[in-house]
Amino acid sequence: MDNFTVYKEKIDRFLAQKSYGDFPEDLYQPIAYTLSLGGKRLRPVLALAACDLFGGDINRALPAAAGLEIFHNFTLLHDDIMDQAPQRRGKTSVYKKWNANIAILSGDTMFALAYRYFLSGNYQNLQTILSTFTDTAVEVCEGQQYDMDFENRVDVTISEYLKMIRLKTAVLLGASLKIGAAVAGANARQADLLYQFGVDAGLAFQLKDDWLDAFGDEDKFGKSIGGDIVANKKTYLYLKCLEKASPSDRDVLLRLYSPEAPEEREKIKRVTALYGKYDIQNETIREMEYFFNRALHFLDMVKAFKDRKDELARFAAWLYRRDH
Amino acid sequence: MDNFTVYKEKIDRFLAQKSYGDFPEDLYQPIAYTLSLGGKRLRPVLALAACDLFGGDINRALPAAAGLEIFHNFTLLHDDIMDQAPQRRGKTSVYKKWNANIAILSGDTMFALAYRYFLSGNYQNLQTILSTFTDTAVEVCEGQQYDMDFENRVDVTISEYLKMIRLKTAVLLGASLKIGAAVAGANARQADLLYQFGVDAGLAFQLKDDWLDAFGDEDKFGKSIGGDIVANKKTYLYLKCLEKASPSDRDVLLRLYSPEAPEEREKIKRVTALYGKYDIQNETIREMEYFFNRALHFLDMVKAFKDRKDELARFAAWLYRRDH
Repeated sequence: MDNFTVYKEKIDRFLAQKSYGDFPEDLYQPIAYTLSLGGKRLRPVLALAACDLFGGDINRALPAAAGLEIFHNFTLLHDDIMDQAPQRRGKTSVYKKWNANIAILSGDTMFALAYRYFLSGNYQNLQTILSTFTDTAVEVCEGQQYDMDFENRVDVTISEYLKMIRLKTAVLLGASLKIGAAVAGANARQADLLYQFGVDAGLAFQLKDDWLDAFGDEDKFGKSIGGDIVANKKTYLYLKCLEKASPSDRDVLLRLYSPEAPEEREKIKRVTALYGKYDIQNETIREMEYFFNRALHFLDMVKAFKDRKDELARFAAWLYRRDH
Repeated sequence: MDNFTVYKEKIDRFLAQKSYGDFPEDLYQPIAYTLSLGGKRLRPVLALAACDLFGGDINRALPAAAGLEIFHNFTLLHDDIMDQAPQRRGKTSVYKKWNANIAILSGDTMFALAYRYFLSGNYQNLQTILSTFTDTAVEVCEGQQYDMDFENRVDVTISEYLKMIRLKTAVLLGASLKIGAAVAGANARQADLLYQFGVDAGLAFQLKDDWLDAFGDEDKFGKSIGGDIVANKKTYLYLKCLEKASPSDRDVLLRLYSPEAPEEREKIKRVTALYGKYDIQNETIREMEYFFNRALHFLDMVKAFKDRKDELARFAAWLYRRDH
């Protein structure tokens, strides 16, 4: 069993043994429900890995790791209201299972509980740890707002898109590593390098998500191909295609992402045909490879035992190379 | 100019000189809007007063005081979505002026910004200060959930109601004082006494609010009498009347708080007539006097300069004796 399996099991056990609260039930049942839905526990795993990398006691990092996971689940809970998403991790989302008011309020409570977990760690460098967490939380909200803004804009640029996914997704992965490093007492320079690694790897992961939605293998991917296209999501693929396409193809693509679009299957077929014509598959691969390699470069600069760094690099590669 | 006027001006200036953030605009404009609507700034004023009481530097308490005010405004912002309240402090509420998604997300951001303010204070005893704040934030959410639960229940007891207003309103007033005391370096026993003072005074203030809604002078009150009755709010007055009324009057009151109720003015008239019949006005005065006197008793036990304690007691009395 490798270390990353151990980290995840430790986190699952830590989260399962905690009671988040009992009454009022309509507040705490949605919280327990949300945290029982599982998932990769990526953020807390990264926090423990970073703590381990610098020779820290990973048990000391568990409260902060749990805080990161609870925060992440809070953002999903509120995102599901805003996106009117009826499902989360294959189950009914909280706002559908209960209602929007309960989802707002149990989400707010989870945000406070995240801080409570951080505080329960009795960290010497609490100021540093919570400043990283708090600044990141603000950025995640900014990212979600940009994402919503983009739905109503036709002039989104690739650099704006990269900024949005950096804020919405990547910085929390970086912060998870940085916080784990801080718990282990790593100095600021080392923690920052690890942060950069996490942010760049996070960008690569998100681009991979975009890529899989259009070019993934449906059987392995587990959901239908083209979901982003059907939802008119302005992904990297779509924006790159707009950038590269001839003026007339650009108009075609814009029309495919408008109320004039044909039915779903036809729409997916035509959009992916344009992606093919302009080599968007390889353009995207080049971009994600760029971020992934830059991530590894930052990791390489970290002063820590080589075998531990290699293990973290392998874990990142495993996430990045995944085909589902 | 008394000290409390100085506190409020300091806070207004501190809040006005800060930029909460610029982009995305749809995230930060609602935040600036909310914080510009003013209000009594009661929580931060109490924090500065408590800091002053123990001889602390009130400028050092400003970041924490601002954090408390931002948190309070965040809860109002989300409450307005949940209650579908179109107005706040006489202006259009954020969810009406923008939309519910923006109100959810800018509220979330304000919660994070509240922590950022606390962290910017560089407090020696950050752990103590943030634990008080975080535990209180969880309680405020619990209080709001109980308040929503009560709307759908007919068997709410007075002790449940008192617990609800304690959580939703009173504990944050207590925590504001406790945090101000902690900034000044007061010991835990002194800070706790001040907390108890704030909680009991908060209960008295809230009962006074209930009382004013039914027995206030419409000209001074600034809003129409009977708003709680029209909204079927299960206030202390209503619950006390249910408790004291004869079985037949109890049925009448229950029917007045049901879809079978007559039109507004008639409904208010009949409910207040029942309050009169069962001396609810004086029952409520007795209850609020009990809490207010207990509050003063806790304040009396605090070890601090008598003139400063007297000033705080006068401020509390001014709030409590208000007729609007």
